[in-house]
Amino acid sequence: MSDKTIEGLTLLQKSCTTVYRDSPEDAILETFPNKYPHRNYVIEFDCPEFTSLCPITGQPDFAKIKITYIPDLKCVESKSLKIYLFSFRNCGMFHEEITNRILDDLIAACDPRWISVRGMMNPRGGIGIDVTAEYCRPGFEGPTSK
Amino acid sequence: MSDKTIEGLTLLQKSCTTVYRDSPEDAILETFPNKYPHRNYVIEFDCPEFTSLCPITGQPDFAKIKITYIPDLKCVESKSLKIYLFSFRNCGMFHEEITNRILDDLIAACDPRWISVRGMMNPRGGIGIDVTAEYCRPGFEGPTSK
Amino acid sequence: MSDKTIEGLTLLQKSCTTVYRDSPEDAILETFPNKYPHRNYVIEFDCPEFTSLCPITGQPDFAKIKITYIPDLKCVESKSLKIYLFSFRNCGMFHEEITNRILDDLIAACDPRWISVRGMMNPRGGIGIDVTAEYCRPGFEGPTSK
Amino acid sequence: MSDKTIEGLTLLQKSCTTVYRDSPEDAILETFPNKYPHRNYVIEFDCPEFTSLCPITGQPDFAKIKITYIPDLKCVESKSLKIYLFSFRNCGMFHEEITNRILDDLIAACDPRWISVRGMMNPRGGIGIDVTAEYCRPGFEGPTSK
Amino acid sequence: MSDKTIEGLTLLQKSCTTVYRDSPEDAILETFPNKYPHRNYVIEFDCPEFTSLCPITGQPDFAKIKITYIPDLKCVESKSLKIYLFSFRNCGMFHEEITNRILDDLIAACDPRWISVRGMMNPRGGIGIDVTAEYCRPGFEGPTSK
Amino acid sequence: MSDKTIEGLTLLQKSCTTVYRDSPEDAILETFPNKYPHRNYVIEFDCPEFTSLCPITGQPDFAKIKITYIPDLKCVESKSLKIYLFSFRNCGMFHEEITNRILDDLIAACDPRWISVRGMMNPRGGIGIDVTAEYCRPGFEGPTSK
Amino acid sequence: MSDKTIEGLTLLQKSCTTVYRDSPEDAILETFPNKYPHRNYVIEFDCPEFTSLCPITGQPDFAKIKITYIPDLKCVESKSLKIYLFSFRNCGMFHEEITNRILDDLIAACDPRWISVRGMMNPRGGIGIDVTAEYCRPGFEGPTSK
Amino acid sequence: MSDKTIEGLTLLQKSCTTVYRDSPEDAILETFPNKYPHRNYVIEFDCPEFTSLCPITGQPDFAKIKITYIPDLKCVESKSLKIYLFSFRNCGMFHEEITNRILDDLIAACDPRWISVRGMMNPRGGIGIDVTAEYCRPGFEGPTSK
Amino acid sequence: MSDKTIEGLTLLQKSCTTVYRDSPEDAILETFPNKYPHRNYVIEFDCPEFTSLCPITGQPDFAKIKITYIPDLKCVESKSLKIYLFSFRNCGMFHEEITNRILDDLIAACDPRWISVRGMMNPRGGIGIDVTAEYCRPGFEGPTSK
Amino acid sequence: MSDKTIEGLTLLQKSCTTVYRDSPEDAILETFPNKYPHRNYVIEFDCPEFTSLCPITGQPDFAKIKITYIPDLKCVESKSLKIYLFSFRNCGMFHEEITNRILDDLIAACDPRWISVRGMMNPRGGIGIDVTAEYCRPGFEGPTSK
Ligand SMILES: [Ca+2]
Ligand SMILES: [Ca+2]
Ligand SMILES: [Ca+2]
Ligand SMILES: [Ca+2]
Ligand SMILES: [Ca+2]
Ligand SMILES: [Ca+2]
Ligand SMILES: [Ca+2]
Ligand SMILES: [Ca+2]
Ligand SMILES: [Ca+2]
Ligand SMILES: [Ca+2]
Ligand SMILES: [Ca+2]
Ligand SMILES: [Ca+2]
Ligand SMILES: [Ca+2]
Ligand SMILES: [Ca+2]
Ligand SMILES: [Ca+2]
Ligand SMILES: [Ca+2]
Repeated sequence: MSDKTIEGLTLLQKSCTTVYRDSPEDAILETFPNKYPHRNYVIEFDCPEFTSLCPITGQPDFAKIKITYIPDLKCVESKSLKIYLFSFRNCGMFHEEITNRILDDLIAACDPRWISVRGMMNPRGGIGIDVTAEYCRPGFEGPTSK
Repeated sequence: MSDKTIEGLTLLQKSCTTVYRDSPEDAILETFPNKYPHRNYVIEFDCPEFTSLCPITGQPDFAKIKITYIPDLKCVESKSLKIYLFSFRNCGMFHEEITNRILDDLIAACDPRWISVRGMMNPRGGIGIDVTAEYCRPGFEGPTSK
Repeated sequence: MSDKTIEGLTLLQKSCTTVYRDSPEDAILETFPNKYPHRNYVIEFDCPEFTSLCPITGQPDFAKIKITYIPDLKCVESKSLKIYLFSFRNCGMFHEEITNRILDDLIAACDPRWISVRGMMNPRGGIGIDVTAEYCRPGFEGPTSK
Repeated sequence: MSDKTIEGLTLLQKSCTTVYRDSPEDAILETFPNKYPHRNYVIEFDCPEFTSLCPITGQPDFAKIKITYIPDLKCVESKSLKIYLFSFRNCGMFHEEITNRILDDLIAACDPRWISVRGMMNPRGGIGIDVTAEYCRPGFEGPTSK
Repeated sequence: MSDKTIEGLTLLQKSCTTVYRDSPEDAILETFPNKYPHRNYVIEFDCPEFTSLCPITGQPDFAKIKITYIPDLKCVESKSLKIYLFSFRNCGMFHEEITNRILDDLIAACDPRWISVRGMMNPRGGIGIDVTAEYCRPGFEGPTSK
Repeated sequence: MSDKTIEGLTLLQKSCTTVYRDSPEDAILETFPNKYPHRNYVIEFDCPEFTSLCPITGQPDFAKIKITYIPDLKCVESKSLKIYLFSFRNCGMFHEEITNRILDDLIAACDPRWISVRGMMNPRGGIGIDVTAEYCRPGFEGPTSK
Repeated sequence: MSDKTIEGLTLLQKSCTTVYRDSPEDAILETFPNKYPHRNYVIEFDCPEFTSLCPITGQPDFAKIKITYIPDLKCVESKSLKIYLFSFRNCGMFHEEITNRILDDLIAACDPRWISVRGMMNPRGGIGIDVTAEYCRPGFEGPTSK
Repeated sequence: MSDKTIEGLTLLQKSCTTVYRDSPEDAILETFPNKYPHRNYVIEFDCPEFTSLCPITGQPDFAKIKITYIPDLKCVESKSLKIYLFSFRNCGMFHEEITNRILDDLIAACDPRWISVRGMMNPRGGIGIDVTAEYCRPGFEGPTSK
Repeated sequence: MSDKTIEGLTLLQKSCTTVYRDSPEDAILETFPNKYPHRNYVIEFDCPEFTSLCPITGQPDFAKIKITYIPDLKCVESKSLKIYLFSFRNCGMFHEEITNRILDDLIAACDPRWISVRGMMNPRGGIGIDVTAEYCRPGFEGPTSK
Repeated sequence: MSDKTIEGLTLLQKSCTTVYRDSPEDAILETFPNKYPHRNYVIEFDCPEFTSLCPITGQPDFAKIKITYIPDLKCVESKSLKIYLFSFRNCGMFHEEITNRILDDLIAACDPRWISVRGMMNPRGGIGIDVTAEYCRPGFEGPTSK
């Protein structure tokens, strides 16, 4: 812990105990009711601060994650999403798997009509990897205008 | 009020009394007749200066709103739109709801053939939320070229 | 308040009661001890989400504020700075005054060796205003490299 | 007139008398024969220097106009287009109308197979207006690749 | 005047009678007292929407004007500055002269400690002209940090 | 010729005699066999350094040319393309004609399955012209993904 | 070899013997099992650091390669891809051929459902070449959203 | 000459006979009196459309020229500058020489207090050349703020 | 660990055992002899992938670190620098302290003539923090050209 | 060598035999007389296409090199510079050394009054290295304006 004296600080208290999980299994994606289920509207989360570890070398990897979905009855609550994404911090996982894993977890959490997850990883050895996985509920025609 | 001496100012008078409303219920969206109803042309409002409050923590949120629509008999008058959007300033509302609320209010105000509202919120906790809601009048085939 | 059902949300609780002040007089700028007083290092806060009201017309103004200072014995704590800047939200003040007011309040709060405050206001009537105010403690030669 | 002595100037003579019209009614859009009528090719004019007046307040408005069309037998001559667009300088007209007016005038002038006019107006009161109007000659399938 | 029916418009009334002048001689630059005369702070106006006429050919010219000054006892009021700059709209003046003219008029209006005016004109014949004129009151050392 | 002494220069010899033609008629577009005729792949030449003369005023015009095509049995050799494009340097030709002329010459040279030529001319009198002409061999369905 | 004394360096050891091949024939593209074969997800490799030689003049050429594919049972391992792309360093090959060669080698290595390879070569003689080759397995409908 | 029928064109007449010179020796740089000789103000010409020939290979070169100067009694007239710069079109000259040649010709034409000419040539063989030459009249301290 | 089958992978072996430390105390900054001690040259490391934890809330912070120094007898080896910077990953430290801590550790490691460390932290609560700390060895005049 | 049939190609002949050297020792930097020795003008070479090998791992490195110098009696000929820089292609050298090596070789070749070489290497392991080395002939005051 930092040895900064924090006596004088009344605003920046520890009391806002946000618990950060150490793996996606432990992080719960929370939702709230969709007030506009009669409409196919698109929600997109831009998450430029994603980091995980290379499963082989242990070197940190950095990526931008973009989640785009059409909710059905449930919307994803963004603070729980933040904690869920931070939970990959010290996990070793290949990037193709991370992108598909996030897609599966979100489908399980909010059962959307359509969802796309894109993971854009910073270059390693001069090569960047950019993975996009989609899911469309059977019978749903997907987003009209992309 | 600022204590700036304004005696010398003849141009910047209070007389231009624009009344700013404190919630969308009180703000009236005004319209004028569409002179070209024989044509499906697209009007887009770019509104980069939108701010509201987080309904849970009360922290100010900042967003860009883009409204794109094909008018039928009525066009939205932009000054009234400005006042309507400013009326969210001190309202606590989730971003998914703000975007859909603006869509509903505009449909009620000008009964467009097609309309899309997109709300791009600045990141909170490193995550940006970007919501797009559309409405297309039954029977209208929507904008040809997007 | 939004009528979003929040029963299911365990993470996004009201408990993180950050109190937002309604004017700079009520907002307290907090500080913590500078661990490196033997060094003239530069700290810069980039605050792109600033909004206040025009004192004459009441129309919302939007600006970016940049605060750059060399601390002496005390450093400014950023969460209290956030609350202090948000406190201008519903205040009517000319932009030249806002910039100088922030400079004076920060000097009072942390007694820095050198400090510069820059306020870049979004255009109104096609004209943007960009104000920079500096203070250098007598005897201090100011930042070597800008 | 400027009092700059122009005796020495042999190149910049008044003799290039381009007459600037003070309203679109007076400006004639000239054309020349399309040498490639057997082909549906696309011509786009980018006109970033457009200005007119707000019909209510008289305040100058500034916009970018983009004209894209597929010529039939006649092509629009760009110098006459320049003079035609400059003729809006001191006219009071709402932006939705300006865009449709330019579309109608160009249809009358060169009877194109397909034409689109887009007017992107600089923000006023923080809101930018961006209008796109299209015309496609009955029976013509429109531009294949946009 | 536009033939747009404006009965329904209560907000966009003519009552905000801002009078636009037709030449800089007629436009009055207004000021308000500088509340911080004990400090050499810098105010910069970014005016990207400037237009005038070429004195020889009458063709419209477009430019960005940037005004940077250190006020003494008086600050320039921005709405009067807007009207003053718009007054060049139908004036024929060479760009070198416009920049120096604005500098002289501002010196006369607010007697600043230091002031710089920069005029960046859009290209004509492929050549852009960018003029910067400065004035520093005798004895004043000018802005420390540019 | 420049009076630069070139005795010491062994590398930059005249021996690389590339002959530059003074009009498109004299410049020969060369080709080489397409090794992958079983595949509809797309080749795009970006040629940002194009210049010709206005046929009326003689003033130099500058443009970017983009050539995109799907080869059949023959591919265009880029050095001969360079010489062909440079051959327009001192030719007077309207921009609409230049774009179609290049399209016709390339069709004659390499008989492609599909080809598009786009000419983006720098603004003159504030207006830029951007012409796109396409040709698709009868029976060929054109590029799938644009 | 550099004469930099490397005694003190314990981390940057030669032991990480990555063998760099001197031609694509010798470089082996390795793969790992696709854990999500039930889904058509898109993987894109951005490889901005590609260099080879002009087959005629021997001058180095520089390009950006972008590989986009939908895996079937096998995914391409990126470190082997890096070594494979570096193996072109001292090979003389025309750019059209390089792009198609990479496509063929990747098809042989991982038998994808769909794959596109794009090679964007830096300009030579002012002209840039940008080649895109695609392959879609018979019966597979290709990527829905590009 | 182009075979475009120009009967219908009344505006784009040949009458504006601007004579383009074929070498700098023949092009005359014209000036007009500086109305503000009591002030050291800076004029900058941005000339992004410059082209000449390589003296050895004859290949066209393309460059951006930037001329920045403080006038004394005479200002450079921009149309004559345009014709002077276009006169290099078919001249073979090394880039270092072009930049110094323009500097010398401008000194001869308007005898400025200070002048800088910068020539930024597009890359050839992957290498761009960017030459800056300055002249300061003996006794003049040069531009204060660069 | 990921369950990706890695039998087939011969290139991506664990054998390149780079050991990543869990705090700056354990990470050793290695150096190699400066071959050009007779010259004051500047080395700059751009490290855009830095992450640590907020000491109060535990939330991950993301920053860009830029290290600029003039070596004396020793140069910093970049792989050891990478491991040292990654060692902050799970440390709780205020940003002002991180920047000064890196400066002190580098001074201890390579005893440079001059060094500057800049830490630019991504916004939290809409506010970004950007800290720059410098050290100049007594008697050394610092970098001439910045 | 590529198996592309080149019979038809008359322009792209091997005859332009530029010999590419395999190490800086073998590449000769050629010069031509400076025609303006009476003036301290600045020449800058932008060389964005530089590549060499890591001396330890053999992995290719990519960098941008910028050479800025004030010539005395001799100017560097750019084609010989191109060949000299390409000669590093297959050399193993640390980046700090490359930058200083280029500086020394250029000093030896053209004995400039002042010269600066900057090497900006693409990131490896997320870290970019950017080295700037300068030399100023004793007694020469260096470039006035940077
Ligand atoms: Ca990508
Ligand atoms: Ca109310
Ligand atoms: Ca987005
Ligand atoms: Ca209060
Ligand atoms: Ca500014
Ligand atoms: Ca828009
Ligand atoms: Ca008047
Ligand atoms: Ca400029
Ligand atoms: Ca001929
Ligand atoms: Ca265009
Ligand atoms: Ca391209
Ligand atoms: Ca440069
Ligand atoms: Ca430890
Ligand atoms: Ca900053
Ligand atoms: Ca050798
Ligand atoms: Ca850098």
